[in-house]
Amino acid sequence: MNVLITGGTGFIGKQIAARLLKQGQMQIDGKNQEINKIILFDAFAGEEIPQHQKIQVVTGDITDKNTLETLLSDIDIVWHLAAVVSSAAEADFDLGMQVNLYGLLNILDILRHQKRHVRFIFASGCAVFGGELPDIVNDQTVVTPSSSYGMQKAVCELLVADYSRKGFIDGRVLRLPTIVVRPGKPNKAASTFFSSIIREPLKGETAICPVQADTPVFITSPRRCVDAMLHAASLPAKRLGNKRIIPLPGLTVTVADMLQALEQVAGPEAVELVQWQEDESIQRIVQSWPAYIDAPYAESLGFQADANFSEIIQSHIQDHPHMPSTVEV
Amino acid sequence: MNVLITGGTGFIGKQIAARLLKQGQMQIDGKNQEINKIILFDAFAGEEIPQHQKIQVVTGDITDKNTLETLLSDIDIVWHLAAVVSSAAEADFDLGMQVNLYGLLNILDILRHQKRHVRFIFASGCAVFGGELPDIVNDQTVVTPSSSYGMQKAVCELLVADYSRKGFIDGRVLRLPTIVVRPGKPNKAASTFFSSIIREPLKGETAICPVQADTPVFITSPRRCVDAMLHAASLPAKRLGNKRIIPLPGLTVTVADMLQALEQVAGPEAVELVQWQEDESIQRIVQSWPAYIDAPYAESLGFQADANFSEIIQSHIQDHPHMPSTVEV
Repeated sequence: MNVLITGGTGFIGKQIAARLLKQGQMQIDGKNQEINKIILFDAFAGEEIPQHQKIQVVTGDITDKNTLETLLSDIDIVWHLAAVVSSAAEADFDLGMQVNLYGLLNILDILRHQKRHVRFIFASGCAVFGGELPDIVNDQTVVTPSSSYGMQKAVCELLVADYSRKGFIDGRVLRLPTIVVRPGKPNKAASTFFSSIIREPLKGETAICPVQADTPVFITSPRRCVDAMLHAASLPAKRLGNKRIIPLPGLTVTVADMLQALEQVAGPEAVELVQWQEDESIQRIVQSWPAYIDAPYAESLGFQADANFSEIIQSHIQDHPHMPSTVEV
Repeated sequence: MNVLITGGTGFIGKQIAARLLKQGQMQIDGKNQEINKIILFDAFAGEEIPQHQKIQVVTGDITDKNTLETLLSDIDIVWHLAAVVSSAAEADFDLGMQVNLYGLLNILDILRHQKRHVRFIFASGCAVFGGELPDIVNDQTVVTPSSSYGMQKAVCELLVADYSRKGFIDGRVLRLPTIVVRPGKPNKAASTFFSSIIREPLKGETAICPVQADTPVFITSPRRCVDAMLHAASLPAKRLGNKRIIPLPGLTVTVADMLQALEQVAGPEAVELVQWQEDESIQRIVQSWPAYIDAPYAESLGFQADANFSEIIQSHIQDHPHMPSTVEV
């Protein structure tokens, strides 16, 4: 089977590709299907792409329907990860709409006309929530996006669910927690510092924390995220029925919890590299996100949260061993 | 001020226009604004259009952006009622997407670039709900559309809310109950019989009821619907803040309740004109809609439900006195 990962040169896309290469096959509806081709499609060529004859990196514009038609012509599974992130979609409304909404609409339209019922995994996120929220958000909490990015994700969730109900695609929407620790460099997401305050100190570099230490956040590790991406693809359609929107479980930690785990793993000198420089705008955005989420539907389908934050740091170090670290792993 | 009503030659559009003509003005942000022009835009020329120099009927295609740009050039308030109804949008997916989703996206895009912060009232509906629902739906119930029409309405709600949050428009979304008694002829909506079983017997004609007598439905009369449309337009933006989606209150009645009221108003001979011919498909669709809805947000804003079904029948007869009726009014 042939795989397309949009936003594929990002860190989650690369890790899905690496995992697929390692497995060599995927179990789909009880049958083992060999992976023949993995296209990583992105606006950027990216770095550290897994090198393998089955992997093709294609750079292009996701708003260009002709490009998408060519790309999708022989694809069996799509992971649709491409997105303009929250701050960028808020700053440039047109760009966010073009990539986050019309990009998806174009793909769905092409897949519908192909009539091949392609398996389609879509990365949504907790940005569908905002404003006044219950203390604990769950599967039954009404979405209330307070950013255009969140609105676009919420809209796409509904589109993927309906295209699936109609039998045009076989869609699975994962509503992801904030991913921490992200490898690489900071991006334009308001949440980017949650990774920086762990990642940079592990490299012996300083990082700025713009929120208060008691600020909670609902997270998943990249490993659990990739687990979820693959698990979502292998779930039989009949287990999902028309319930295609799957809010994922995650771990709630405060910044203080995160730094305590950092100290356990990398010593007090790592924590001292975190500089406190409050940014009211970021504090406000982060506080608008739900920090406590129950995800019984996802758990009933076998999705799992991380056990604790120390493990998340350990797995980050294991997955990125080339980074200078103050600890031996 | 200049008004555009899309789907304007439909019965709600015509009644809004008639009400605006009668008032001559609207109170907007504490000021009385004179109504100078009312454009009824629709795919159909319609019948019984209010005749007045201020009223223009324009027929055209709502998916044509050039048409919309011309129409919207000097408009201050839009009531966006145009839609492909539920059964039709389910049968012709492309048509539903083009009219119900892209039609709205085009209008929003034009209004955004005009930068005039146009007041925009959007007619959504209870079709955003479906499948497993709580016994009583309320403002906090997550949308779960089980039709493409419902998905399109749910998506448009989110779009109007976000365009309003960004200050591109001043939007107000009304999530309408089923409208009963609709005047005129049956349409392609699965709910159309709820009106037929009252309207046709009042004219001495037979009507078919495809559901069981104990089937409940959540309704509003055309009068209350038009009241809500005008009230929504006159609410100050600051009373709404970012809460732009307003699920409206309504009246829950069973088919049996409706026919009992019909008997009170028009005698047992009217009720005998209703023929029972169960249609499982319609029964299933109607049962997927929420029958009991609490709407505290709308009520806090001054929206009101009908008092009882007898009044709804009486107001139907008053508003359509030219129809032969078995009772004197």
